[in-house]
Amino acid sequence: MASNFFFPSETYKSRRQILINKFATGKILLLGNEESSVNFEDNWYPFRQDSTFLYYIGINLPSMAAIIDIDNQETILFGDDTSIDMVIWTGPQTPLSELGQKAAIQKVLPLKELENHVDKHTMFLPRYRPEHTLKLEKLIGSKDAKHSLPLIHAIVSQRNIKSEEEIVELDKAVSISAGMHKAVIRAAKAGMKEYELVGVAQKFAADHGTRFAYPAIMTIHGETLHNHYYGNTLSEGDVMLYDGGVELESGYCGDLTRTFPVSKKFTELQAAVYNTVRNGYLKAREISRPGIAYKEVHFEVCKILAAGLIEIGWMKGNAEEAVNAGAHTMFFQHGLGHMMGLDVHDMENFGENYVGYTDEIVRSTEFGSRSLRLGKKLETGNVITNEPGIYVIPQLIDKFQSEGKFKAFINYETLNENRDFGGIRIEDDFLIT
Amino acid sequence: MASNFFFPSETYKSRRQILINKFATGKILLLGNEESSVNFEDNWYPFRQDSTFLYYIGINLPSMAAIIDIDNQETILFGDDTSIDMVIWTGPQTPLSELGQKAAIQKVLPLKELENHVDKHTMFLPRYRPEHTLKLEKLIGSKDAKHSLPLIHAIVSQRNIKSEEEIVELDKAVSISAGMHKAVIRAAKAGMKEYELVGVAQKFAADHGTRFAYPAIMTIHGETLHNHYYGNTLSEGDVMLYDGGVELESGYCGDLTRTFPVSKKFTELQAAVYNTVRNGYLKAREISRPGIAYKEVHFEVCKILAAGLIEIGWMKGNAEEAVNAGAHTMFFQHGLGHMMGLDVHDMENFGENYVGYTDEIVRSTEFGSRSLRLGKKLETGNVITNEPGIYVIPQLIDKFQSEGKFKAFINYETLNENRDFGGIRIEDDFLIT
Repeated sequence: MASNFFFPSETYKSRRQILINKFATGKILLLGNEESSVNFEDNWYPFRQDSTFLYYIGINLPSMAAIIDIDNQETILFGDDTSIDMVIWTGPQTPLSELGQKAAIQKVLPLKELENHVDKHTMFLPRYRPEHTLKLEKLIGSKDAKHSLPLIHAIVSQRNIKSEEEIVELDKAVSISAGMHKAVIRAAKAGMKEYELVGVAQKFAADHGTRFAYPAIMTIHGETLHNHYYGNTLSEGDVMLYDGGVELESGYCGDLTRTFPVSKKFTELQAAVYNTVRNGYLKAREISRPGIAYKEVHFEVCKILAAGLIEIGWMKGNAEEAVNAGAHTMFFQHGLGHMMGLDVHDMENFGENYVGYTDEIVRSTEFGSRSLRLGKKLETGNVITNEPGIYVIPQLIDKFQSEGKFKAFINYETLNENRDFGGIRIEDDFLIT
Repeated sequence: MASNFFFPSETYKSRRQILINKFATGKILLLGNEESSVNFEDNWYPFRQDSTFLYYIGINLPSMAAIIDIDNQETILFGDDTSIDMVIWTGPQTPLSELGQKAAIQKVLPLKELENHVDKHTMFLPRYRPEHTLKLEKLIGSKDAKHSLPLIHAIVSQRNIKSEEEIVELDKAVSISAGMHKAVIRAAKAGMKEYELVGVAQKFAADHGTRFAYPAIMTIHGETLHNHYYGNTLSEGDVMLYDGGVELESGYCGDLTRTFPVSKKFTELQAAVYNTVRNGYLKAREISRPGIAYKEVHFEVCKILAAGLIEIGWMKGNAEEAVNAGAHTMFFQHGLGHMMGLDVHDMENFGENYVGYTDEIVRSTEFGSRSLRLGKKLETGNVITNEPGIYVIPQLIDKFQSEGKFKAFINYETLNENRDFGGIRIEDDFLIT
């Protein structure tokens, strides 16, 4: 959907000025995204602009680029206006000069001029689409040109702190996402296919002028963390896990997970596991405050989960010792949360470690902890997810058991009796204040 | 959605054998597609396998390739099995050796072996994603390696004729697509947003375990041929144009267009234009038979449209002369139809001219006619669309009028009184018998 969304032009100007002020000299290249082909060149996936381009330039159209020139304190937009031939196919388009005005950009040049404004000293961001590799090779003249770490750090420090305007958008995206979850929960009943619930969610998203920010996880097999298969039939007694969020025209998104019983009521065991996850969620909500290292939040929540699992009888011993030994990773294999904003994993395209870690707080290499995307201290204005879960993965039980792992903390006998339990996750989005 | 769909393994074997028999020697490389990143590497668009890979190999998973070795009459599948780490994220996966069996392929090798089986004589198909360019450069060792024309011709001649099994799938896809259109027409009413109707369509598609084969055109501005903006509100008196079709798990798709009045009843003028388009549609249906050049079908329909437009008063003079002069392209700027199958524009990734034209029947370079994707003689077993339309495009009126074009055939005065008429199209899918 072509977007008409723009913040006031002053917003883009001041965002760029903040970035410019972080550098003494040089040029910054921001590549807009291209259309992505599905099965032939002109059959496209829904267009998604690069988030950094959206943040500093705001124009939600393919085949554009921008240069922010530190020395001249000037931004140049590169792109081509629509020809009359294209008008037949795509309708009348706003001239680029006019779009430039919306982003407080005075200078607009044809795309072919871009190569004359890029040299091997131009700073650029990491590639995350094959098109970026091809473009950069053509522009920089080298396959091995390296993205700029100072540029990454400068942008992360800026985009990590959400402005009032951004928070309004994020609040809207999260509210619509919450409504989408309610619609799914209301519609779910035994006999339905998972894909029918995906349809309910799609309709809700479309009814609100939005689309999915990421492929829905809509599954009775929540133990598969990134499950995008929707072919199962819901049965009485099943637990449905739905991880879904919408993206607004502005690009800002929501990321929520709910787990609910198809039969409207959990079994006793399901309720016990759900409440353990909920206790972890409440702990995360309580202690996610400016100044705390998110790594610490993660491990505090792990201890709550372990304590609950000890009560349930799937774990044993002391919760804190179990977490120190890593035994909780049998059940909680991913990280507690991540930054959210224009991307559902905000700025993950820069490399997770630049967004979630610092030189002091570095990423673990241990199973489980290494999947924690965010470890560094929280700051006022961060927007994060908290998403604890408990997952029973038969293959992982077999692996850990055969390796003789965590025998002091895992009750393999009772756990094996519940190999088909599934998975439960609760996820909400939080503004740190 | 990960597909479990396979034809009987014999189907893939015999399809490959037919292809092998067309060559004396050599190797054919078939590249499967990768996941496509949206705004960061791990946020993916819904996976779509390459259609030729689906046709000969059938496996609907990313990061695979196949070599069909003519000399050894052997097919090798290249891919990597899922590691235990991946099982946590994606669930247990069928081993590739087992998937190979489903396609009657005995030899499965790790992906890294592929480069040892490709050399500069290996035949391959045209690139349509940036990833293809990067892969081929790595495999062939050259940026300029050229796809194989004999391979294109061999595959087109095979895929152009749909088998019984394919027709069953296509029939299913078209039936579900037709149901989707009925659901949209039933739901439409004044006051709704176009995007709400997209939601109705998405839900219908999902309810039937399918997804859109291409982005929906759902618009009160049907005169914009590829309109993907959904933000308008439907008003009484508006004409809605919906061009949409679903894709099955098997990859086969439907492609239908309906134009209908929001107020349930057309105005007199709308009815007159609609009936003209319908007469064109009926003509196309009548004469689309084995042996006729589709170019001829196209121009016969153009004459019907011109005759209707003369009656309406937007054109004047003799219909046949008008079409010979190209004056109908004021109203009908695209081609009458195209091949359909695993792709909504079947095999368009090979280059339209190889699919729709021959050495004898070549593509026109004239405005309008140059947009005709299909010109060659129809054969039994072809599956095509017929999609005549009449579109009033203000910018095109101004262009032609200012250039003094078609003054003998266009009644600019009455046409300009109806500059905001919009557009009407009717499209159905046909098996040529």
